[in-house]
Amino acid sequence: MSNIERTRAFIAAWERKDVDAIVDACAKNVVYHNIPMEPVRGREAVRTAIAPFLQMAERVVWETPHIAETDSGAVLTERVDHFHFPGGRTMTIRVMGTFEFDADGKLTEWRDYFDLAEFQSQMPGG
Amino acid sequence: MSNIERTRAFIAAWERKDVDAIVDACAKNVVYHNIPMEPVRGREAVRTAIAPFLQMAERVVWETPHIAETDSGAVLTERVDHFHFPGGRTMTIRVMGTFEFDADGKLTEWRDYFDLAEFQSQMPGG
Repeated sequence: MSNIERTRAFIAAWERKDVDAIVDACAKNVVYHNIPMEPVRGREAVRTAIAPFLQMAERVVWETPHIAETDSGAVLTERVDHFHFPGGRTMTIRVMGTFEFDADGKLTEWRDYFDLAEFQSQMPGG
Repeated sequence: MSNIERTRAFIAAWERKDVDAIVDACAKNVVYHNIPMEPVRGREAVRTAIAPFLQMAERVVWETPHIAETDSGAVLTERVDHFHFPGGRTMTIRVMGTFEFDADGKLTEWRDYFDLAEFQSQMPGG
């Protein structure tokens, strides 16, 4: 499996809202960094960070118009992440992200770049 | 010249603060979109948008730790853009950007993703 395929499988796990599959794809010491925020360090911290959000979402769709792999195996994506919440509320985040994997194919580094105000203004209850 | 090479040459023009070279690399109908802001449309509008900023900067360095090209020829970058201004003031912007080119090798679409507050809080006079 190529790192682009691994990244597509990871995105598919998000779209299934499959927290176990997302966490299992991560290396033990994964660093998940939404760039405008503090990084989340470690597989279990990722679970804690994402589970409430994904439990809230009814439907998740990540459009990925562009994906490419560097010579060193990092995968760069350009995406539009859609989250649909109960009551017809939706979030649409324009984002680019980098995914890096270890020799076992586990995700070690994930950095997403987006405008924090765009995200926060769409948070349910926000 | 590959599209990755074109993108590196474009970055080099920024680092030289060479507004003419930057504008010349753009297609007539280029769309330059700093995602949290309104897109800038057209080569001359790009000049108007960037010239004052680049004239203010003493030194420009864009670190580009990751660069990759998709099957369709779009170039994805992960960067740290540094701008040094008089009086020792600096801006450091963590950013990812997509660069798309036409058959003549001119830049048609440029989208940069970053946190607008991170940018604005570092603007000289901001």
